[in-house]
Amino acid sequence: MKILSVVGLCEILSRMGSELFFQQALRHLENDFSNWRHFKKSPRHATLYPFGVIELMPCSDDEFYTFKYVNGHPRNTKQGKMCVVAFGMLSDVQTGYPLLLSEMTLLTAIRSAAVTALGAKYLARSNSCHLAIIGTGAQSEFQCLMLRQQFPLTKLSYYDLDKQAMNKFENNMRGKNIFLQACDSIEATVGDADIIVTATAAKSGNDLIRPEWLKKGVHIHAMGGDCPGKTELGRAVLKNCKIVVEYAEQSLDEGEMQQMQTTDLYGELWELVSGALPGRENDQETTLLDAVGFALEDFSILKLVHELTEHPDYSDICVNSAIIPDLSDPKNLYSLISQIEANHRKRL
Amino acid sequence: MKILSVVGLCEILSRMGSELFFQQALRHLENDFSNWRHFKKSPRHATLYPFGVIELMPCSDDEFYTFKYVNGHPRNTKQGKMCVVAFGMLSDVQTGYPLLLSEMTLLTAIRSAAVTALGAKYLARSNSCHLAIIGTGAQSEFQCLMLRQQFPLTKLSYYDLDKQAMNKFENNMRGKNIFLQACDSIEATVGDADIIVTATAAKSGNDLIRPEWLKKGVHIHAMGGDCPGKTELGRAVLKNCKIVVEYAEQSLDEGEMQQMQTTDLYGELWELVSGALPGRENDQETTLLDAVGFALEDFSILKLVHELTEHPDYSDICVNSAIIPDLSDPKNLYSLISQIEANHRKRL
Repeated sequence: MKILSVVGLCEILSRMGSELFFQQALRHLENDFSNWRHFKKSPRHATLYPFGVIELMPCSDDEFYTFKYVNGHPRNTKQGKMCVVAFGMLSDVQTGYPLLLSEMTLLTAIRSAAVTALGAKYLARSNSCHLAIIGTGAQSEFQCLMLRQQFPLTKLSYYDLDKQAMNKFENNMRGKNIFLQACDSIEATVGDADIIVTATAAKSGNDLIRPEWLKKGVHIHAMGGDCPGKTELGRAVLKNCKIVVEYAEQSLDEGEMQQMQTTDLYGELWELVSGALPGRENDQETTLLDAVGFALEDFSILKLVHELTEHPDYSDICVNSAIIPDLSDPKNLYSLISQIEANHRKRL
Repeated sequence: MKILSVVGLCEILSRMGSELFFQQALRHLENDFSNWRHFKKSPRHATLYPFGVIELMPCSDDEFYTFKYVNGHPRNTKQGKMCVVAFGMLSDVQTGYPLLLSEMTLLTAIRSAAVTALGAKYLARSNSCHLAIIGTGAQSEFQCLMLRQQFPLTKLSYYDLDKQAMNKFENNMRGKNIFLQACDSIEATVGDADIIVTATAAKSGNDLIRPEWLKKGVHIHAMGGDCPGKTELGRAVLKNCKIVVEYAEQSLDEGEMQQMQTTDLYGELWELVSGALPGRENDQETTLLDAVGFALEDFSILKLVHELTEHPDYSDICVNSAIIPDLSDPKNLYSLISQIEANHRKRL
């Protein structure tokens, strides 16, 4: 089994350039969403604790099976740890044999930003130039850089309760030819924005935005609320939005949609991507992608990484580890033990 | 994250002796089953294909979360691959951080054999000396060696459609001070047995054993049927058995119990282990453990392996891999990318 560490992934990004990697991630994602019907899908398996969640997110087509392990522990940062870490695996459907184990903390940030860009491609005004970010945690820079692939962004306003996180964000985004506006309230941050991303570590039912703060025609991408009981927006905002989700069966349990009826849902993202449903229809409507994260997104980026690590340019980067036994007789698993016993007898 | 390969696990077994490891696996399993109520349990997540299955099996208590990835592809052996391979992970519930990734192909064989021994401890006659094995594939030797921890076995009869697999089994079990009887039919194999283990790669609804072939008071451990549509025994045998399962919610979908009503079920294994229900009550009854494999069993052996790899005697065996980023500022995930960009600028 190939193992791709964080260091290995960064080496790939370094060799190909992170911009190109971001573009490829977005292209793969769009392609996979357009093939939605070919995938075996299910809501993720979540184990809930009072202080966090651990999830397994499987997805499969006829060729590959992938899953991601990911947690969500908002209190982790207080002890110097990340709120969200992840790893993933890709295996061969024909044999069930695992092929690649990969870091996915960084890949999750990248694929989540790709989802934002993909949704905004169909739901935001194409001339959107002002992006507002609520929550400048680990995800925030990736959101901006991926959205910049799709939109002529010139202005970035942002807000976080944690001033250190705001400073970190500003340092990372400086010199990227985009005007940075640190704000001291959510109202000031979103007031003039064309696209709003909410990426907070929502702990319960929040109500971050008042409807009267919003400009006509804004697109909101809400990604921080993603567990039963955790939401970022109130009904007052939601009821005026054209709401799109990734996968209704999961989002009705986990997303902003927890507060709404199924009939309030406009559609699933793949319907927009495949052309089955129109996305934005005029410059006046308020749109919302209620994003919770879906396993197909992990499939998509894991497959990209698998393809890259098979390519000669990057084939030296993975480490191989004997996680799966390689037996001369596949029914003789016990040979592993009999070898030990034979060595033991020799030593006596 | 610590990574324990097959080679690493074999080194632990070699240093401590496989017998001692088997004993500890059995002890851990019994202890965890006696604490059944402390675990978060759910049926496994299975993705079914026409030619196999891929499963994720999570389980958790207040301290550790584990899951296993495991496949079942009966046709794999025809191309020199194992039918069942697996790996597992153990993480820290308080932070969600993964701690150990381990091979689990070998561990699954060992823990499945430990379940057989644990069930037989409560359900077989304590003076059982004749074991019959139907299906001498990858699991078979482990079954015998673990049952020998509990019973004064002197005779082993066995049968498989694959004569090579029977020879392999005989070679592995020779010199273990137990009389080996190769049989040419299931009837001849089970006729005089005290304990029967069925470990076939059941592909559909099989009916391996006729009730009239069975000795009074026999205990059957059926472990080969473990998917919807896959069973090893017919209703004629089942209706005369005291049937115990690991976890009813899963076994009713996957085990021999698919053919029966909930009311035909005697109890769950933990009830016998914890003393809530009597096991075998007399020498005449026919007992059955309808085993499909449950995530708590993986939890149990992964926790044992985790404890061992933390012990000074074995602490050199795991390899560490940077699967989870180690950041000075946990909210600055983007620092991984900005480092790449900085290096890139330096090179220009």
